[in-house]
Amino acid sequence: MILTTQKINDSYWKVIVNNPPINLFGPEFSEELMVLIDEFEAAENLKVVVFESAIPDFFIAHLDVLKATGFPKGAGKTGLSKSWPDIAKRFEQAPFVSIASIRGRARGLGSEFVQAMDMRFASKEKAIFGQPEIGFSIFPGGGGMERLHLLTGKAKALEIILSGDDYDAETAASYGWINRAIADNELDAFVENLAQRIASFDKKVISEIKSIMNERAVNPTDEQIMDTQTRFFEALAQPEAAIRMKNLFAKGLQQNSDAELNLGKYL
Amino acid sequence: MILTTQKINDSYWKVIVNNPPINLFGPEFSEELMVLIDEFEAAENLKVVVFESAIPDFFIAHLDVLKATGFPKGAGKTGLSKSWPDIAKRFEQAPFVSIASIRGRARGLGSEFVQAMDMRFASKEKAIFGQPEIGFSIFPGGGGMERLHLLTGKAKALEIILSGDDYDAETAASYGWINRAIADNELDAFVENLAQRIASFDKKVISEIKSIMNERAVNPTDEQIMDTQTRFFEALAQPEAAIRMKNLFAKGLQQNSDAELNLGKYL
Amino acid sequence: MILTTQKINDSYWKVIVNNPPINLFGPEFSEELMVLIDEFEAAENLKVVVFESAIPDFFIAHLDVLKATGFPKGAGKTGLSKSWPDIAKRFEQAPFVSIASIRGRARGLGSEFVQAMDMRFASKEKAIFGQPEIGFSIFPGGGGMERLHLLTGKAKALEIILSGDDYDAETAASYGWINRAIADNELDAFVENLAQRIASFDKKVISEIKSIMNERAVNPTDEQIMDTQTRFFEALAQPEAAIRMKNLFAKGLQQNSDAELNLGKYL
Repeated sequence: MILTTQKINDSYWKVIVNNPPINLFGPEFSEELMVLIDEFEAAENLKVVVFESAIPDFFIAHLDVLKATGFPKGAGKTGLSKSWPDIAKRFEQAPFVSIASIRGRARGLGSEFVQAMDMRFASKEKAIFGQPEIGFSIFPGGGGMERLHLLTGKAKALEIILSGDDYDAETAASYGWINRAIADNELDAFVENLAQRIASFDKKVISEIKSIMNERAVNPTDEQIMDTQTRFFEALAQPEAAIRMKNLFAKGLQQNSDAELNLGKYL
Repeated sequence: MILTTQKINDSYWKVIVNNPPINLFGPEFSEELMVLIDEFEAAENLKVVVFESAIPDFFIAHLDVLKATGFPKGAGKTGLSKSWPDIAKRFEQAPFVSIASIRGRARGLGSEFVQAMDMRFASKEKAIFGQPEIGFSIFPGGGGMERLHLLTGKAKALEIILSGDDYDAETAASYGWINRAIADNELDAFVENLAQRIASFDKKVISEIKSIMNERAVNPTDEQIMDTQTRFFEALAQPEAAIRMKNLFAKGLQQNSDAELNLGKYL
Repeated sequence: MILTTQKINDSYWKVIVNNPPINLFGPEFSEELMVLIDEFEAAENLKVVVFESAIPDFFIAHLDVLKATGFPKGAGKTGLSKSWPDIAKRFEQAPFVSIASIRGRARGLGSEFVQAMDMRFASKEKAIFGQPEIGFSIFPGGGGMERLHLLTGKAKALEIILSGDDYDAETAASYGWINRAIADNELDAFVENLAQRIASFDKKVISEIKSIMNERAVNPTDEQIMDTQTRFFEALAQPEAAIRMKNLFAKGLQQNSDAELNLGKYL
């Protein structure tokens, strides 16, 4: 099991991500997440879900590039492709609130995972963000081209995606990538308090607030999400991507290595 | 009189809000504001209006919930409902500039009041912001679902509205809720200088800048504003709202009480 | 020559702006820029262009108001008016990345110039930004009414444009006007590293990222740009503009003067 759910009470659940060594996001992760989101949607009283990592240096490292083509095929409940795009849309539309509490690296699909949550809080000292795809001759394919600019504006999204570099939590907060960077020793108490607080309110009102806000604010369209995904897999099939990946695997990619700790520098 | 206008000169007027004990926004406040905005629109040379509070701890506490159904009925000049939605739209479209200079609490409709101004400056030490509606089993009904996310982005608007919690001025500034948090002993001079400065420019250009910007930038639609207002009054009529309000009135709601000073904690 | 291109290598070019005394943007500047952008577009391997100023106190002071009607007429490649609007659109749509590295004043068209780049970095100590048009009884006519609010949000764009005042780099960064304010002694290394980094990636991917982002994010429409330009030249032809300009020329406008160094105060 990669994902373990702690049911604090009927209203507030916590999900611990534990996929050693570096919390890669592969087909198994995606399948467990699809089971979980079915369970979340079926839980009548569920108001808040918090995601945390069990691995100190990694929240979700990135897509498991060796298994990039092994994800479940077909359309999910939302009509989007059955795996991450469908799941992300369901979090957006859910009648419960999703919160990412981030320590360690959240790069690529890890960054796109937290972008799909309703809100994001990160350890000032221990969280690192990146969209390193350009270093593999590809671009963000899991929503980063659609959701990041809604958080940061276009200029900063271009900087992040075109540099492929690592960003600390304070810079990420000042750019709008996350809601707030919080001192590491205060992060858990902050998120716990916020989650318990939201869980104390009426589910009907929580769900109406999310639903009205989704009507008022700009969200990615299904067409944009699928168009990018198609182009992403085309780019991934180009020889340039294979060459750059081979070089990075030789340096320790997808292992608990200096290359993964400081991926920004290695690209 | 709740609202007193100081006409510094032909171009620059200041409005002092004084509705003891805590500057609640009720039908009388709304009616005085409707008279004032008629006067503003008729003043040929008026370029800047600054709103301040006469009550140290409260800018505008929130809607007077005991009088929530007593507001003037019918459609105002803009076609929106005759009271706050009509007034807010007229500030947006006005040929003069509106500035909120904020000390004390601006929660609920008080927060929505400042969101409808063209710009907002607040005392770093003394201003507190909140959208506490969720604690009453309702949601923002006076523009908060439409205007807050335009200032802060969706993720932070959801955090603010779903937490119902209090935010200090520096956090509000970093979130985009206000233009800037300013040291309390510098706030008056800053706003005075800005207001006098704008008042020294040509009214025709000021009005053209506002008009072009309203065409370029996203503003709430009339449909969104009215849809939320309808749903707001439906939510307010639910028994959950009555129960939560009764509990809060027992603790000092709508009085100059610890509950009003620290409403975020009491919800 | 106002614009000198240093071709660091095939992928990374630097352009130095040198139009003493204060880097005014006049017809000659515009014509050189039109030649340059043709060259940029034709350079098959060009991935990054960085703009810098050779004049310590001025990045680009503003439009040369004495030559405001002397710009090349007719439609450019994009269909927009042949000079700045056409050039700005071409930077936006270009398959290469444009970066402004800013020391000194960037006001009016200077500010609009940097807004048209993909990203902007500025010296914390030495950069100053402003949209001073209102002090001349006009308003931003070169994209400031369209691009600034996309960077800062409407409330801050209104504050900037209605005040006409000077903003230091840290305030500009906190408002989103620029990506980041960087200590003066670190700015060059930061931009050099970012430019070299982007230049090390595949041009095809760089160009696809820009193209997808332009489809996803909001950009000014051609109609908005041309509508504002038309209204700008109408405002410029009003007697109020001539009077305000005459007063400012008497105080040192368009010279290396205290008036140009501290234009915000003089308006």
